[in-house]
Amino acid sequence: MDIHRMNEPKLSLVQVRDRIDSIDRQIQELISERANWAREVAKVKGEGLSAIDYYRPEREAHVLRMVVDRNSGPLSDAEMVRLFREIMSSCLAQEDPLKVGYLGPEGTFSEQAVRKHFGHAAYGLPLGSIEEVFQEVAAGHADFGVVPVENSGQGMIQVTLDMFLTSEARICGEVELRVHQCLLSQRDSVEGIKQVYGHAQSLQQCKTWLRVNLPDAECIAVHSNAEGARLARHADDAAAIAGATAAKVYGLKIIEQAIEDRADNTTRFLVIGRSLFPPSGNDRTSLLITVNDKPGALYEILSPFAKHGVSLNRIESRPAHTGKWQYAFFIDVSGHIDDVPLQAALKDMGPHAAQVRVLGAYPVALP
Amino acid sequence: MDIHRMNEPKLSLVQVRDRIDSIDRQIQELISERANWAREVAKVKGEGLSAIDYYRPEREAHVLRMVVDRNSGPLSDAEMVRLFREIMSSCLAQEDPLKVGYLGPEGTFSEQAVRKHFGHAAYGLPLGSIEEVFQEVAAGHADFGVVPVENSGQGMIQVTLDMFLTSEARICGEVELRVHQCLLSQRDSVEGIKQVYGHAQSLQQCKTWLRVNLPDAECIAVHSNAEGARLARHADDAAAIAGATAAKVYGLKIIEQAIEDRADNTTRFLVIGRSLFPPSGNDRTSLLITVNDKPGALYEILSPFAKHGVSLNRIESRPAHTGKWQYAFFIDVSGHIDDVPLQAALKDMGPHAAQVRVLGAYPVALP
Repeated sequence: MDIHRMNEPKLSLVQVRDRIDSIDRQIQELISERANWAREVAKVKGEGLSAIDYYRPEREAHVLRMVVDRNSGPLSDAEMVRLFREIMSSCLAQEDPLKVGYLGPEGTFSEQAVRKHFGHAAYGLPLGSIEEVFQEVAAGHADFGVVPVENSGQGMIQVTLDMFLTSEARICGEVELRVHQCLLSQRDSVEGIKQVYGHAQSLQQCKTWLRVNLPDAECIAVHSNAEGARLARHADDAAAIAGATAAKVYGLKIIEQAIEDRADNTTRFLVIGRSLFPPSGNDRTSLLITVNDKPGALYEILSPFAKHGVSLNRIESRPAHTGKWQYAFFIDVSGHIDDVPLQAALKDMGPHAAQVRVLGAYPVALP
Repeated sequence: MDIHRMNEPKLSLVQVRDRIDSIDRQIQELISERANWAREVAKVKGEGLSAIDYYRPEREAHVLRMVVDRNSGPLSDAEMVRLFREIMSSCLAQEDPLKVGYLGPEGTFSEQAVRKHFGHAAYGLPLGSIEEVFQEVAAGHADFGVVPVENSGQGMIQVTLDMFLTSEARICGEVELRVHQCLLSQRDSVEGIKQVYGHAQSLQQCKTWLRVNLPDAECIAVHSNAEGARLARHADDAAAIAGATAAKVYGLKIIEQAIEDRADNTTRFLVIGRSLFPPSGNDRTSLLITVNDKPGALYEILSPFAKHGVSLNRIESRPAHTGKWQYAFFIDVSGHIDDVPLQAALKDMGPHAAQVRVLGAYPVALP
């Protein structure tokens, strides 16, 4: 932003619009030039390729991080990242666009995660189940898949973790959607509220708060939170669980904010694909480590990480399907699998693990 | 695009990425500058305003038409317009974003129309019926509404037209979504196809083709065309009706293209608001003209348009709710209501019409 211009004597609306027109002309030229360079990259890699052949998630993450670092407003980081995501999405989709499978139908949280990560120029492929997302990626019908893996209110999503036990899928990225649930109503307080509408999952996430504050209200599961807010708007004795945006949109009062049982209500998604990608500069590695069930097994697995200064982000154990008395640990650590400390930790662990599989090494989710 | 750069000796991938980084830096600076100017415009109009107070549909249409005129590739006009729509959407949403009501739920065609016209930074407000969209706009709960008005396969959507008979809503824009229906299947031909899946509306649009070419197949209505394509993919004796994109996405063969009963299968939406906007340079005007039922009434209404060289785009008659033996004509003409020829035509018509209401004057839909 050229700050001097702002200090000039006040411009007329026509003059401001002329300036905006000139800015738009420059933006358009630059976007076209960027798209041409993207084609050059494609040509370097070979003719007749699809987007999947030159899509580099580590490069995109790097570009978007630079966007955040440079951003000095007035647009928020999230808005600016969104615009660059769309520009990259359009540049990439000049050849066959990426096909991204997700748990359908359209209009769900999973689709939001797809759009947040791949933009609107990618093809979305709504599928019937999380298993199907894995199958379509494995079969090459989808280039990538987006599956929910963790809800901070309810923990890890087991069906997704279990798929990794038998599938060859590689994790290529993560996406986080943050949602705070609020209680919305025409009324000013919980007094007199007899029904609470919300999506089943939202009602579940706010179970404790509802039990304490509205023990006698009837909880009614509806198709979506938007639907619930819409119903609450026309009722004198009802409330809805939805995000704060819905209060604005539907003209309801926010009786209480952040009523979810865990306050950091984030849904985390994994982007799955068929290959590993190089480091982006700020990465996470997901490992699946199988151990034989003997005393001290977990300690022997974890101590090499501590020794080499590798931070653990998450750990989750599951009975392994591979053999009796074996356990599988899903472990997320900071850093890329190519990093020296992580390599050293895995080398030390070697003899103690029955099996170590690298599920993926991928850029940490952007805000 | 600086064409000379493309003729330089081949650059390495690292060099190309450096160029792209430098382009991105410039794009970001320009977008931030644009957003600052947008704030200036808001300030000129007054403090504490919402986006609705300085949203100018005629200005947006003008900007996007310039984008199309300037575009020399490699991105398509539609992609470039999409990116500028999103940039404008972000700049506008710095204050309270626009709230746009539409016929829900999320994920439908109507939502696509909202996003095509207002971008993703606006708040979408899924509602339960077309009537409710009109009511919410009238009550000021929504700044604008998007309602389907015409499907080229099935003609005008009567419930929308009828709402204009009693509502004060003004038309502020139109959006067109073009969809060609295809028959998709695992099979190479219609032979052996026993079921056809599709959304009820899509099945309806292709009724004639289905009756002629697949008279014995069972038509099964499903939640969405995507759902139908998904089902057809796993069946040996089924087909689905969906767009050509779905064939790519779901790996199905296109047995036949453009099977809708009318080949130009476009759904047209109207953007409704509470006020009239100035001309954008390429506009359409919608009129509601009520006449007493006497011989020659329609002729007397239409001849002034011909006399003053105003093109009629559409005409649709409805029994008026205002009085017995009256008819209402919905008439779309080329040009803005402020244009001299249109004003002259209305003046000439004056004595012959029981009532003339300007439903709206708005930019013609972009491609």
